[in-house]
Amino acid sequence: MTTSERVTAAVLIIGDEILSGRTQDVNLNAIAKYLAAYGVDVCEVRIVPDVEQEIVDAVNALRHRYDYLITTGGIGPTHDDITADSVAKAFGVTAPEHPEIMALLRERWGEPNAARRRMAHVPEGGTLVKNPVQGPPGFQIGNVFVLAGVPAIMRGMLGDVGPRLRTGAVVISKTVRVTGSGEGTIAAPLEGVAKAHPDLSIGSYPFFAPPDLYGASLVIRGRDPAQVDAAVEELVAALTEAGVKGIERMPEGA
Amino acid sequence: MTTSERVTAAVLIIGDEILSGRTQDVNLNAIAKYLAAYGVDVCEVRIVPDVEQEIVDAVNALRHRYDYLITTGGIGPTHDDITADSVAKAFGVTAPEHPEIMALLRERWGEPNAARRRMAHVPEGGTLVKNPVQGPPGFQIGNVFVLAGVPAIMRGMLGDVGPRLRTGAVVISKTVRVTGSGEGTIAAPLEGVAKAHPDLSIGSYPFFAPPDLYGASLVIRGRDPAQVDAAVEELVAALTEAGVKGIERMPEGA
Repeated sequence: MTTSERVTAAVLIIGDEILSGRTQDVNLNAIAKYLAAYGVDVCEVRIVPDVEQEIVDAVNALRHRYDYLITTGGIGPTHDDITADSVAKAFGVTAPEHPEIMALLRERWGEPNAARRRMAHVPEGGTLVKNPVQGPPGFQIGNVFVLAGVPAIMRGMLGDVGPRLRTGAVVISKTVRVTGSGEGTIAAPLEGVAKAHPDLSIGSYPFFAPPDLYGASLVIRGRDPAQVDAAVEELVAALTEAGVKGIERMPEGA
Repeated sequence: MTTSERVTAAVLIIGDEILSGRTQDVNLNAIAKYLAAYGVDVCEVRIVPDVEQEIVDAVNALRHRYDYLITTGGIGPTHDDITADSVAKAFGVTAPEHPEIMALLRERWGEPNAARRRMAHVPEGGTLVKNPVQGPPGFQIGNVFVLAGVPAIMRGMLGDVGPRLRTGAVVISKTVRVTGSGEGTIAAPLEGVAKAHPDLSIGSYPFFAPPDLYGASLVIRGRDPAQVDAAVEELVAALTEAGVKGIERMPEGA
């Protein structure tokens, strides 16, 4: 593996409650940060309702396009939990009751009712993803990981995802913050540095807190730490040269 | 308009910073709640990077499929702000400098520099969306609304979006919360009510707070208030009949 190798992922969030605004999604952010530590870039996200054909279409669009697809939501026992069956359909297989999950359910509940048996559905060929928190496991089929929607449970399951990934070179991110100058002032020096470093991803994220705090976080991301550091220094020099005030090099992760 | 008419929307969030996990998106939630008050349902969301072809493809996929598309992000003056030009490309038009925005920029900055002039790009045929907060306006072209990414500014712009929408019948949402029973116990009575009301959307959203708080919010959504109320009563009766404890009718909006 070279440092330029890029491993990609998509995230598919399944749930009417996110689309209706009832629930604020926090799983994407947790997944993106988790995958970043493995050098895996989240490149696209879709959020779809609890509708089988929507899930099937999104799974097939995303699993073919990216190295990995991570889904969240819809693996419980209620009628609206249709993710396992939908993912099976996307792969053209059935989703029988998995013996290990059935054993877990029997241990917990005695003979499980029909609703709980739904939680044992795993597409043929799938392997289980450990759930160290509460309830039944998730599963992996091909390059698709199917995780719970409840954030605490989803984060617990992620621990069994990372070790299965083909990892990439980790992206280093450094931030230069400019306070009290607008993006219109920053743009020209920033673009000069961006053009000089086509291998880096350089973004400007304005902040604005009324009445008078404003500025932008200039984020330089790349897989070669020396190049990232060099770009930071070039950017600070270019901003200073352009007369921009309020320049700060932020600590990593800021 | 009948109460069964459904008006649909998609949301397209444009920005590397959301995908990388640097920033937690909060715009989707605000947009979904805002549109709900106009009876407009968010049916799909995509999040794409600051890459022209990705934006063009997503805009064209979503604007043809839904009544409205709302985009956020990428309308500032820096090199990574490519939304206006990308949306223009999706529509097959150019994005010249809009005279009203140029006038605003001149009023604020004198003759604006090249970076700030980017903020005046509006696709041909587009109309401006007021920005009552800070900076230049967004725009509408066809059924696509292009808004800022900074949440406070995005929310301000939404005020000029609602009055332009064809409105639908507003969805009423009522919640029955069950504490101390798992979804496996709730599932059968819930499914019975869901099957009796195919026009309603009935979802179960488990909650879980270690060590021992758990249960589910059962959300009944529909456009006919009488039917929603009837389903709530049927659900409470069916849960009670099934021996479920800890049933609460929640106040609206809970």
